[in-house]
Amino acid sequence: MKTRAAIAWGPNQPLQFEEIDLEGPKDGEVLVRIVTTSLCHTDVFTLSGRDPEGKFPCILGHEGVGIVEDVGRGVTSVKPGDHVIPLYTPEDPNCPFIQSGKTNLCQSIRKTQGEGLMPDGTSRFSYKGQTIFHYMGTSTFSEYTVLPEIAVAKIDPAAPLAKASIMGCAIPTGIGAVRNTAKVRPGDTVAVFGLGAVGMAVIQGAVLQGAGRIIGIDVNPNKFPLAMSLGATECVNPRDYREPLQNVIIDMTNGGVDFSFECVGNVDLMRAALECCHKGWGESIIIGVAGAGEEIATRPFQLVTGRVWKGSAFGGVLGRSELPGMVDEWLRGEINVDPYITHNMDHETLNHAFDLLKRGEAIRSVIHYQERETLSHDLPGVILDRDGRVIPRPDSTRYPA
Amino acid sequence: MKTRAAIAWGPNQPLQFEEIDLEGPKDGEVLVRIVTTSLCHTDVFTLSGRDPEGKFPCILGHEGVGIVEDVGRGVTSVKPGDHVIPLYTPEDPNCPFIQSGKTNLCQSIRKTQGEGLMPDGTSRFSYKGQTIFHYMGTSTFSEYTVLPEIAVAKIDPAAPLAKASIMGCAIPTGIGAVRNTAKVRPGDTVAVFGLGAVGMAVIQGAVLQGAGRIIGIDVNPNKFPLAMSLGATECVNPRDYREPLQNVIIDMTNGGVDFSFECVGNVDLMRAALECCHKGWGESIIIGVAGAGEEIATRPFQLVTGRVWKGSAFGGVLGRSELPGMVDEWLRGEINVDPYITHNMDHETLNHAFDLLKRGEAIRSVIHYQERETLSHDLPGVILDRDGRVIPRPDSTRYPA
Repeated sequence: MKTRAAIAWGPNQPLQFEEIDLEGPKDGEVLVRIVTTSLCHTDVFTLSGRDPEGKFPCILGHEGVGIVEDVGRGVTSVKPGDHVIPLYTPEDPNCPFIQSGKTNLCQSIRKTQGEGLMPDGTSRFSYKGQTIFHYMGTSTFSEYTVLPEIAVAKIDPAAPLAKASIMGCAIPTGIGAVRNTAKVRPGDTVAVFGLGAVGMAVIQGAVLQGAGRIIGIDVNPNKFPLAMSLGATECVNPRDYREPLQNVIIDMTNGGVDFSFECVGNVDLMRAALECCHKGWGESIIIGVAGAGEEIATRPFQLVTGRVWKGSAFGGVLGRSELPGMVDEWLRGEINVDPYITHNMDHETLNHAFDLLKRGEAIRSVIHYQERETLSHDLPGVILDRDGRVIPRPDSTRYPA
Repeated sequence: MKTRAAIAWGPNQPLQFEEIDLEGPKDGEVLVRIVTTSLCHTDVFTLSGRDPEGKFPCILGHEGVGIVEDVGRGVTSVKPGDHVIPLYTPEDPNCPFIQSGKTNLCQSIRKTQGEGLMPDGTSRFSYKGQTIFHYMGTSTFSEYTVLPEIAVAKIDPAAPLAKASIMGCAIPTGIGAVRNTAKVRPGDTVAVFGLGAVGMAVIQGAVLQGAGRIIGIDVNPNKFPLAMSLGATECVNPRDYREPLQNVIIDMTNGGVDFSFECVGNVDLMRAALECCHKGWGESIIIGVAGAGEEIATRPFQLVTGRVWKGSAFGGVLGRSELPGMVDEWLRGEINVDPYITHNMDHETLNHAFDLLKRGEAIRSVIHYQERETLSHDLPGVILDRDGRVIPRPDSTRYPA
């Protein structure tokens, strides 16, 4: 079959929009029509060429939501019509890692996923006969995509598809890191390094856990109002200080924070995040993805005196068994998705979304494959036309409520 | 008063044995007669000049046991005649760190202790009018030493003083790191980097926790028989392999260990210890003390994929409230102290103990201040004369049973 898709031909090249070929689902696979997808820094990172696993040409995109259109043989847990979130961290109950109960890092299809291929070692995407690679096992920058059954989470169909893509990465990553990896407790002091979507979700997670102080940190003060509205108790711009950032935070917090989260992918910031932790018990959680070959460093004395250095991937969330419950929390009003969505646009405006994210002007840009299905009066964020200009709120036949 | 003491005049100088002046205990202080003390790598490290806190001239020694001889005003928890272990990690119930319940790193006297002084900012030691600094708040290489009340742990007087010094550092550090910091569980796989006394205690702690595999690692295979006798299930000499040590351990363990412990103080080994941990959940605990300015490094991906980097000081043990219970475990036969003691000697043979430790020939050399009090037929290890030669087992009037 054919599908509209954004091809990443190589590092730093604009995505090219084409009708490409998509093979249907094989055994144990699912064909999903993506309804919305949103742009995450990891896509930007891979397109920059700094991702050692980046393999071109490929279809990027890993934060999306869609509807099952078809299933291959042996698929039993989802059927056509089900609403699903693609999982770049799948959950296979037969994987020893999952069976350990200690981690969400399912390894069942890790090798082929890292190679840009489906579990059988082939790609479902091609363009004029040339293989196009998958990306993170999800490739949501295609209107139709094929996923292994273990890489889709079935969610409540009541969840608005116009917004649900944010539940595919940013929100579980941030809230999960707070809950599952750090296990923040009521009254704790938390520092959040980097106020993108994941940092915002960390703030929201810290509020949910009852943290006492939540310090947002970013060199872009335009992020501060949103951070404060989500529950940050104060915000810090490192450029306002001459001394090292860790010292600033230690001074502000009478000895350091209980937990810090690095949501940028900068190894110097990872060091600052560790070293601003409280002696004796402070824990720092790395969420950001650093460039190929980059290393973190510190004096071992930082650890011997009680600080703990950890990391978190997909917030430690089990995609199939736990993510649907987080969607339910959203539907019950306990998790807030709207504030993350700053921009809405259609598929062919995706390159503009990259610019917005790189310039720090967007938290999340949502790509709507089928405008009529998802754009409505109550959509958060602005709506852009194909030239990237803000257009009026939908009140015409083009955007029925 | 006068006391026999070993003065460290400066880095890399042999200790000099003198009668020095000791002021009696001031308010809240305790005068302790050290009965035995043993030599730990940290003393060697400080004497080498690599310890940033090393301050000369000083009286080294931090692993000892003694008897309270006198107490200053306000001291209520110990009295003359009590058997005590000096604590380089004190425990002050009024310290906020102790009150947090999250750490054993009491900060009450941290600043002056780091400066080689008693809490009032002065030293009790002097020689011909010159101030001699304290070391780690303990200075057990003096027959008499003065300690803050919060820095002595009162132990069961049934504990043989000839051996109890080992309970002052090596054993609580190693066993505590396994129990308190790592919380090793039955069946876990454990790697121990460095088979000195602390590494041996980690092995013993892992056995007590029911670990399934315990891999001892050292470049000196002479350490392997003792490690195996204490419960290591296998031993590895990194020099037997061409590939990086982390890969060797990962291959041996089907993906890595559940817990690793660095007991050397080598930053490259700390990296190997982290990177041999199992993806998803492996935790590495740094116990060894690295040189001034040395740093640990790794790719952040190691942490993002689930490994945890921690440290441990004095095994996370609360000196006054928990160490006496560990002495009781020893008296009940649950903790084995004898194997650590490879050599016994008197005070003036201490420089020889440094040589033995540096050459890897000793696990612990025990210094007996009062031979008649402690040397007996059942003493483990060999006995050295003042020239460092092994002398026959005590069977004369010199060494009454």
